[in-house]
Amino acid sequence: MNIRKFVVSLFLLIQGYISFAQNEKPNVVFILIDDLGYGDLANYGHLIAKTPNIDKFAKQGIKFTNFYSPSPLCSPSRASMLTGRTPYRLGIQSWIPEGDNVYLRQHEITIANLLKNNGYQCFLSGKWHLNGGLNEKTHSQPQDAGFDKWTALHAFAIPNHKDPINFFEDGKPLGKIEGYSGTIVVDKAIQYLDERDKNKPFFLYLPMNEVHGQIASPSKYLKKYNKYIKEDIDLVNLKDNGPGEYYANITFMDSEIGRVLKYLDKNGLDKNTIVVFASDNGPVTSQWRKFYEINLNGSTGGFRGRKADLYDGGIHVPALMRFPSQIKPGLVSSEPIHGYDFFPTIFSMLNVPIPKDREIDGIDISPLFTEKPISRNKPLFWAFEMRPSDDPEGYFYAARDGDWKIITDFEVKKVKLFNLKKDRFEVNEVSKANPEIVNKLKTYILEMKKSIELDPLRPKDVSTPNMD
Amino acid sequence: MNIRKFVVSLFLLIQGYISFAQNEKPNVVFILIDDLGYGDLANYGHLIAKTPNIDKFAKQGIKFTNFYSPSPLCSPSRASMLTGRTPYRLGIQSWIPEGDNVYLRQHEITIANLLKNNGYQCFLSGKWHLNGGLNEKTHSQPQDAGFDKWTALHAFAIPNHKDPINFFEDGKPLGKIEGYSGTIVVDKAIQYLDERDKNKPFFLYLPMNEVHGQIASPSKYLKKYNKYIKEDIDLVNLKDNGPGEYYANITFMDSEIGRVLKYLDKNGLDKNTIVVFASDNGPVTSQWRKFYEINLNGSTGGFRGRKADLYDGGIHVPALMRFPSQIKPGLVSSEPIHGYDFFPTIFSMLNVPIPKDREIDGIDISPLFTEKPISRNKPLFWAFEMRPSDDPEGYFYAARDGDWKIITDFEVKKVKLFNLKKDRFEVNEVSKANPEIVNKLKTYILEMKKSIELDPLRPKDVSTPNMD
Repeated sequence: MNIRKFVVSLFLLIQGYISFAQNEKPNVVFILIDDLGYGDLANYGHLIAKTPNIDKFAKQGIKFTNFYSPSPLCSPSRASMLTGRTPYRLGIQSWIPEGDNVYLRQHEITIANLLKNNGYQCFLSGKWHLNGGLNEKTHSQPQDAGFDKWTALHAFAIPNHKDPINFFEDGKPLGKIEGYSGTIVVDKAIQYLDERDKNKPFFLYLPMNEVHGQIASPSKYLKKYNKYIKEDIDLVNLKDNGPGEYYANITFMDSEIGRVLKYLDKNGLDKNTIVVFASDNGPVTSQWRKFYEINLNGSTGGFRGRKADLYDGGIHVPALMRFPSQIKPGLVSSEPIHGYDFFPTIFSMLNVPIPKDREIDGIDISPLFTEKPISRNKPLFWAFEMRPSDDPEGYFYAARDGDWKIITDFEVKKVKLFNLKKDRFEVNEVSKANPEIVNKLKTYILEMKKSIELDPLRPKDVSTPNMD
Repeated sequence: MNIRKFVVSLFLLIQGYISFAQNEKPNVVFILIDDLGYGDLANYGHLIAKTPNIDKFAKQGIKFTNFYSPSPLCSPSRASMLTGRTPYRLGIQSWIPEGDNVYLRQHEITIANLLKNNGYQCFLSGKWHLNGGLNEKTHSQPQDAGFDKWTALHAFAIPNHKDPINFFEDGKPLGKIEGYSGTIVVDKAIQYLDERDKNKPFFLYLPMNEVHGQIASPSKYLKKYNKYIKEDIDLVNLKDNGPGEYYANITFMDSEIGRVLKYLDKNGLDKNTIVVFASDNGPVTSQWRKFYEINLNGSTGGFRGRKADLYDGGIHVPALMRFPSQIKPGLVSSEPIHGYDFFPTIFSMLNVPIPKDREIDGIDISPLFTEKPISRNKPLFWAFEMRPSDDPEGYFYAARDGDWKIITDFEVKKVKLFNLKKDRFEVNEVSKANPEIVNKLKTYILEMKKSIELDPLRPKDVSTPNMD
């Protein structure tokens, strides 16, 4: 055990008292969808794609209409949601290519680490993407992040969502698995739940590979959207296949989530299980930029930009929470919420104290569940680094303070300011007319940046990003 | 008459012999659609929007599947199609805001100038956008470009396509006109045709305002796409209205074009009229960048990028030509064609010589009409300047040579190379693997740039673009 691991374990030991009776502990299920856009669900306004299971879920709890993912890219967003800390603090500033030397450090405390220490069984089935590879011995792996059992792949299913070859289970490669990724990960999740110790509460983290490219869905779903499909997907001779393939994948994803929710219902777990549903970042729209983005047709629901942009199209995504005993069904909240809020909120709901030895950027938003106000002590914050292979090169920092949103370049010199109340599509850049707001938000970003770079837990070997 | 005008007139006088008997001269109709994407027409693969009139037209002549507009933006593209010269040569390097001091110089020779000098009556009804304003006395106006009668607006209908207030007729403002822009310009075009001298051939230039923002269509068309419309357009409280509004505008545009084509049929003009149909640049997709782009939902048909990009999504657009006596009906050509080819091609079809005192970048593509090969003496070329208000800042030069396409920055240093045969969606940048192709195309661009900047007709007061 290295010193960092020891520090984490010590902390967990000290604060790990039992805060409620064993048999009353609620279970937690966190369903995270990959690249799902704000406009991609029927209950968020999609005009064609059907999502009956998620629509039903949305009515059973609280629906957020101003939820923001922690980053417009996968890895930083996932790391942040699991730790309650802004991803820049974690040293995860962009998506992590396989083989890259970036990973979630072992001294970080994830939802699973903290739940495990509180007597939970923790299961992961789906996409990890928080290190350079699931066979990378020098990087932390899902078991280090608190997962007792796990089946996962790195970033996306290879060759595509059908018959993937790159899943690992508890560190061992599984080879080719027949079937579609959504079914594979839900089968495995249900198997974990079936085989669990029924005397212990559980945490199921279900980061699905849908609707990230390269999508593939069973023909049953493709048939539903036949009208919107032009040709068979053919990645050698690239073609525009129409949006139907993507709609089918949305409905397939919804259907597989339906299986998890039905499992909870049938086993009497629905009332005692906190279920979180969210997307990790905005969608790939018809403006694809990489080979695996071809033929995706996500909808930002009108927001400007797309995945990898700091405009709302890149970070303003769907999110839902359900927990009948604490969340009034049918609530819709337009309060701006950030993905790093899940960590303190879940532990507040469980009455488990969160770490005090480190900065937690998120806040407890549970007052919203009974329609009470929340007060945030600092603006919502984003920092991310575009990889050179990403295109176009994007802006780097953003903050939202009330109705104001600022986006800045790496040097925090060039800025774009929008008033989201008057202009939710970010078309009118108003920095010149609002110098005081600009100065305040620039100062905030510079201070956050400095403070984060001095965070003692921030990896020391993370280079300062260079946008050139 | 200034010296430039005199030079032009002298040229026109010298070469203006009558190349065919007066009553045999074919008429010319040039229908130019604004921001229509490659995938926006049913006959180019749109899965929802109906375009029966243009679909029928496409079967009556030749359909180009590799047609490129001269620029990914309006003004340069229009100037180039009317003159046969690359827009950089004309000093029109970006779209022209109202009040800007950029305009098509009087010494340039447009299709209308040359046709007028060959005995044609020339009419314009629609969008001009080749100067800083239709009341700008120091700029050339449609009459200087050869139009005997004209009704036009600057760039787009204000406040939107319904009841526009910014049309001018022969230099006089018309005030508010009730109705939708498409109907207004087609009514005026048909009026010009009705009132024309029947003993002379005519040229009708019909640059429609559809489907550029801010779109508005009669309710009859909106109803057809009701399923794809969420809410009424409301530009104060911006909303995502769904794509139906845009589909309605496409069908409305198609319907108005149908009226022009029916006029030709009914008056026995169809056989003796060359009809050209094209788009000036790629579409605005859901990735809008400006206030007047909100809620547009154009389709590039899968091509990467959108309007204002040098990726194919910005320049690869629909184009059709019809002329029964010279163009075999039902032809489909995948030959790469450039918008500056229309000028020499139309005059070749009319057996009228084109100016020899200036560089014409386009070539005569009429051999394609009888399925014969064409040979181009230089790669297709693009140069344009992003205005600072455009976002993101784009690449500046591009060239296509056979299957290879290069896109470069302003300094012709950073490059992107694509092989369009293998990779028509431009996802695999292959410059490193093909240094010889890169060098050849970079050299070509630098030579073109130098030669254009030395073109004696290039306006001397056009600054060298600065991308900073």
